Amino acid sequence: MPNSFGHLFRITTWGESHGPSIGVVVDGCPPRLPLTEADIQADLDRRRPGQSDITTPRKESDKVEFLSGLFDGRTTGQPLAMLVRNSDQRPEAYSEMQTAFRPSHADFTYQTKFGIRDHRGGGRSSARETIGRVAGGAIARKILALAGEVEIRAFVTHIHHIAAPSLDHFPTLAEVEANAVRCPHGPTAEKMIEAIKQARSEGDSVGGIIECRVRRLPVGLGEPVFDRLEADLAKAMLSLPATKGFEIGSGFTGTLLKGSQHNDAFIVRDGAVHTATNKSGGVQGGISNGEELVFRVAFKPTATILQNQATVDVQGQPTELHARGRHDPCVVPRAVVIVEAMTALVLLDHWMRHSAQNRTFQF
Amino acid sequence: MPNSFGHLFRITTWGESHGPSIGVVVDGCPPRLPLTEADIQADLDRRRPGQSDITTPRKESDKVEFLSGLFDGRTTGQPLAMLVRNSDQRPEAYSEMQTAFRPSHADFTYQTKFGIRDHRGGGRSSARETIGRVAGGAIARKILALAGEVEIRAFVTHIHHIAAPSLDHFPTLAEVEANAVRCPHGPTAEKMIEAIKQARSEGDSVGGIIECRVRRLPVGLGEPVFDRLEADLAKAMLSLPATKGFEIGSGFTGTLLKGSQHNDAFIVRDGAVHTATNKSGGVQGGISNGEELVFRVAFKPTATILQNQATVDVQGQPTELHARGRHDPCVVPRAVVIVEAMTALVLLDHWMRHSAQNRTFQF
Amino acid sequence: MPNSFGHLFRITTWGESHGPSIGVVVDGCPPRLPLTEADIQADLDRRRPGQSDITTPRKESDKVEFLSGLFDGRTTGQPLAMLVRNSDQRPEAYSEMQTAFRPSHADFTYQTKFGIRDHRGGGRSSARETIGRVAGGAIARKILALAGEVEIRAFVTHIHHIAAPSLDHFPTLAEVEANAVRCPHGPTAEKMIEAIKQARSEGDSVGGIIECRVRRLPVGLGEPVFDRLEADLAKAMLSLPATKGFEIGSGFTGTLLKGSQHNDAFIVRDGAVHTATNKSGGVQGGISNGEELVFRVAFKPTATILQNQATVDVQGQPTELHARGRHDPCVVPRAVVIVEAMTALVLLDHWMRHSAQNRTFQF
Amino acid sequence: MPNSFGHLFRITTWGESHGPSIGVVVDGCPPRLPLTEADIQADLDRRRPGQSDITTPRKESDKVEFLSGLFDGRTTGQPLAMLVRNSDQRPEAYSEMQTAFRPSHADFTYQTKFGIRDHRGGGRSSARETIGRVAGGAIARKILALAGEVEIRAFVTHIHHIAAPSLDHFPTLAEVEANAVRCPHGPTAEKMIEAIKQARSEGDSVGGIIECRVRRLPVGLGEPVFDRLEADLAKAMLSLPATKGFEIGSGFTGTLLKGSQHNDAFIVRDGAVHTATNKSGGVQGGISNGEELVFRVAFKPTATILQNQATVDVQGQPTELHARGRHDPCVVPRAVVIVEAMTALVLLDHWMRHSAQNRTFQF
Repeated sequence: MPNSFGHLFRITTWGESHGPSIGVVVDGCPPRLPLTEADIQADLDRRRPGQSDITTPRKESDKVEFLSGLFDGRTTGQPLAMLVRNSDQRPEAYSEMQTAFRPSHADFTYQTKFGIRDHRGGGRSSARETIGRVAGGAIARKILALAGEVEIRAFVTHIHHIAAPSLDHFPTLAEVEANAVRCPHGPTAEKMIEAIKQARSEGDSVGGIIECRVRRLPVGLGEPVFDRLEADLAKAMLSLPATKGFEIGSGFTGTLLKGSQHNDAFIVRDGAVHTATNKSGGVQGGISNGEELVFRVAFKPTATILQNQATVDVQGQPTELHARGRHDPCVVPRAVVIVEAMTALVLLDHWMRHSAQNRTFQF
Repeated sequence: MPNSFGHLFRITTWGESHGPSIGVVVDGCPPRLPLTEADIQADLDRRRPGQSDITTPRKESDKVEFLSGLFDGRTTGQPLAMLVRNSDQRPEAYSEMQTAFRPSHADFTYQTKFGIRDHRGGGRSSARETIGRVAGGAIARKILALAGEVEIRAFVTHIHHIAAPSLDHFPTLAEVEANAVRCPHGPTAEKMIEAIKQARSEGDSVGGIIECRVRRLPVGLGEPVFDRLEADLAKAMLSLPATKGFEIGSGFTGTLLKGSQHNDAFIVRDGAVHTATNKSGGVQGGISNGEELVFRVAFKPTATILQNQATVDVQGQPTELHARGRHDPCVVPRAVVIVEAMTALVLLDHWMRHSAQNRTFQF
Repeated sequence: MPNSFGHLFRITTWGESHGPSIGVVVDGCPPRLPLTEADIQADLDRRRPGQSDITTPRKESDKVEFLSGLFDGRTTGQPLAMLVRNSDQRPEAYSEMQTAFRPSHADFTYQTKFGIRDHRGGGRSSARETIGRVAGGAIARKILALAGEVEIRAFVTHIHHIAAPSLDHFPTLAEVEANAVRCPHGPTAEKMIEAIKQARSEGDSVGGIIECRVRRLPVGLGEPVFDRLEADLAKAMLSLPATKGFEIGSGFTGTLLKGSQHNDAFIVRDGAVHTATNKSGGVQGGISNGEELVFRVAFKPTATILQNQATVDVQGQPTELHARGRHDPCVVPRAVVIVEAMTALVLLDHWMRHSAQNRTFQF
Repeated sequence: MPNSFGHLFRITTWGESHGPSIGVVVDGCPPRLPLTEADIQADLDRRRPGQSDITTPRKESDKVEFLSGLFDGRTTGQPLAMLVRNSDQRPEAYSEMQTAFRPSHADFTYQTKFGIRDHRGGGRSSARETIGRVAGGAIARKILALAGEVEIRAFVTHIHHIAAPSLDHFPTLAEVEANAVRCPHGPTAEKMIEAIKQARSEGDSVGGIIECRVRRLPVGLGEPVFDRLEADLAKAMLSLPATKGFEIGSGFTGTLLKGSQHNDAFIVRDGAVHTATNKSGGVQGGISNGEELVFRVAFKPTATILQNQATVDVQGQPTELHARGRHDPCVVPRAVVIVEAMTALVLLDHWMRHSAQNRTFQF
């Protein structure tokens, strides 16, 4: 179903930008996991609006409330529901959306598909929907950390024309969180912030690229032929609002290499099989090979801009949209934690699938 | 399950490179569709090896046989199984794969994950697996054509460093099939063929990029928030062997634009709502908007090369792999029909889902 | 996943007897359906405890709150979440359950399976879990009524040794609701109520049988070979707490007939194909045949009794359980609306599946 | 999808009575299982027609052929496809079915639902469809036996009015196979065989009841709230042709007991927690409790009889059906192995689910 994600560890999300609440049910969470609201809140705080001067000024505390599934501070194996109430709603700020379709938004397609549309703040198509993903992903991330010290780190590598130099190490959380744009290369981050502020001052917006790396992943995650690890990661990333591309390992530029340059030779390091290079990005034949998982996601510039735009109204007549209200000139920095959450969901689900299929029975 | 794809129109595939057969069950095929083996064979012939002098010389006729689901030349709504027998097997050509892991192949990950591996020709990880996809996709494509004259056309835009100029029209099938490399721009195609032959002569390989376009798609296909149309396309493409990237519409280069440059203004054309540009690539908010669907897929250079490579054997000892045997220096031209097949499967499945959800009841 | 039910119209439920809340997400609800909390509350009120003097005295108002998915009083096609807060919790009344396994309850199996258990009121294994099913089922029932005037009516036919005479007509809601036990035959209902009161006075409990009938169902619902209509109904009913059996049409006693007695001859009535008899119970070959759907569900006597029972404690030592607290001597009357809700969920889901598969395309 | 069954161990079946073949794909089979065609053939031979003088004389050897998924005599974790060719087809014997709907068969519902129907031998609605189930079930049964010495034994307890005495022990396979009717009580079996021969001589048919028992099942299989073990067993059984009822443990007659009589007291036996009685039938709260699993399935008398019957033709006109041809006066004895196969499929799938959810991680 369209609002569920995962097979053995599955989230089902609900909620609109200006409805009463956003929420998520996590089904399949292993029992006995110690869990508190603080485990969830940390990631929600990295996602919420208003956290820095380069994001939307919408004020939401995004406090999570557990609705079920816990006993004595541990999960019970039963569905775990979590709720975040919407508070800073200004539906009057969206009256022009009621009649005119915002270019490159979901207004026209939702109206045509469903014959009805909650126009307030984009309704279900708003990025506020990702709160449920982040809350569910925070649990998955905790399990992965406890089970195998798996670490997931996303960060910004490009904002508009500004590109960070290639990273020579696995960045720490502190490095990523050291600046508002979540680029671990400080000097580049400053330029990115400038670019975002510049776009905002023009009533315009910019996009960018997020890279995500995962280390200490075991060999064996991924289920060919259709549920390859990179296939499920690609689906997870392209299911996020504003994403236009996904690549793993060498990606699109890998097409410029020959096979003899691209192949990752196997070597023995510390008594274990490794690859000398990592063009594969941690996945071979659809299955994790124990190397660092490395992929990138492209985010288009935010569709909401504070400039007049030609468009069409719900009666199909040409009109002009005079945008106003709150405006997030670049969603990329806040998307870092969302990318991590989706990654955690994919990896945990595959871990459980791998275990069920390959470790339940020994013949 | 890992070998099934689709929700309402679902294929389940089986088969290894050197096992007895490759096959597919199609479940959910609408009843009363006229269907003959010729409908399937046309696409299988575009996929099969040995069709030109730039592909692997493996000789397979890849003749399809219907095993069930037809009556009086029409589908019955019951599962439709199709079988292709493997014939040109040379298992002795793969003896070195039995003990050594081929770099950037699935040998190591399959062996580690499953604890067993059919090493002959890569077993299930061979691209022969895609026969089932192409057979199932041929049915989906026929239904889409009958239902809405939907046309799906993939073609090669890049081989190694050679890039075709941007296409100013929706290419005909004849244009794509006019040359062995399936690039509709003749002069570029010639250079691409040269590059592939050059790689083959070096015992090396090259990769490339396929673009896929779809026209006459209705508005409304795609199921947010997780089953967005582009998310399911991304999954479909990254589930193919040798793919490393996916992008839709403006893709990665779209991150270099500002919102005011990237947004697709709505206009009225021929009495219907359209967009003036198509940076969105035919999808907004995860739902088709009636414009041409445009996406690209990156294929890495084939991992099989006829050069000596450093690697590790199944006992974990360093060794050198002396490759020999048949060798496909570039899989991209043959992958064109596979990309089309997966696209057809995604689109038909979404068409049926859209219909079930939004057209069954009128309130 | 274990807490989701349905393919195209799917509910996902959460909540424990003594947790903060019980809730449900409905995914796949067709858009534009007019819906208010009153549509849900009516069925919840038929389910809630304390509605008569033969049910548990637990006091719960079970007021439903919409959390998402509505706009201007209509569904939007987006997930619809509903919440009921638990209020009358007396966790102290369950202290003995913490250490001793109640016979024929889920205490032992939950503890062994999950390694942890919310013992308060049975936690997730409590029948309070069915609130989410009833809330989701109320929406399905409304859609079925609007779409085809489909009517679903369940009622009690047996309580302990007391059996109602076979019903010669499709009972009205008023007939069923005319007494506390929900048996449409008044004189029998009185005896049933007496039997329940007698059991309660003994600190004992009784079970019974519910029959469910559905009329005006179209021909064609059911998806062989595995998703036959009766198979999904059987699963739905056996997924309810305390159920031990399901039969459709002639059921177990049909095994006493010969084929010549059991076969339902086809006849023409009012210009349409019907059957002269209905031993099939409205389903042939796994597909609804347009006749009345008739099935029965067996409910065991409630496991909770106010008598001392031999049992084992969590350390695996023999002990005796001294039950006390609130006690529902017979769950069957309250289960009537739960059976209807599950029936509605199965039928609507199959309606949508039938439509997607067989009505989307005409060849 | 309607022709797939299972979540982690999944079969997808295809094939019609008079099409080219019947087959099955098994997806999710754990790797490294030793497997030969003999493992499958043994169960297929117990299912096939013509094995005794009380079944249909249709001659089918039902030889199974592996199409994929094996290497060196072991499963590889890849999809395992199996094929059985149809041979004894007499389509001319079914000409009258082409125009007239056989009473209590699937002819009318298939024709109406799909708008097309393979009338030869019932097409997909024929019990030949169960070959795929038996083949897949044979693998599941082997895994269960290897993993936990789990034993599944079904047998006939009722044929028409003839009831076997209650069994005081877990019957051996030899006891069940000692006679053609598969009732382990010899004197009763003789009467049953007489009853079946009598029905055949009258051109009539009889039904009956199969009981299935499973021993050495671990505690913990079953996934509340919807995927309770008994719910999935009920679905599995009601998905079989000709079934009309399912009950577990005390079943329908359990409604005649009071709670104090029905509850299964917990005791300690051989140092482990057991129940003194087994009214629960091996399942509590939807989860196996380690006791013997005991359930029963009702099969109606075969709809095919060799007597004239009133019916309606495909134009909706009254007509009379003059049946002729081969005729199975009682399907119950052959259904024994099919019940076992479906049971094995349900149990193995739940074993793998339980393992994934509860044993992958220890906190």
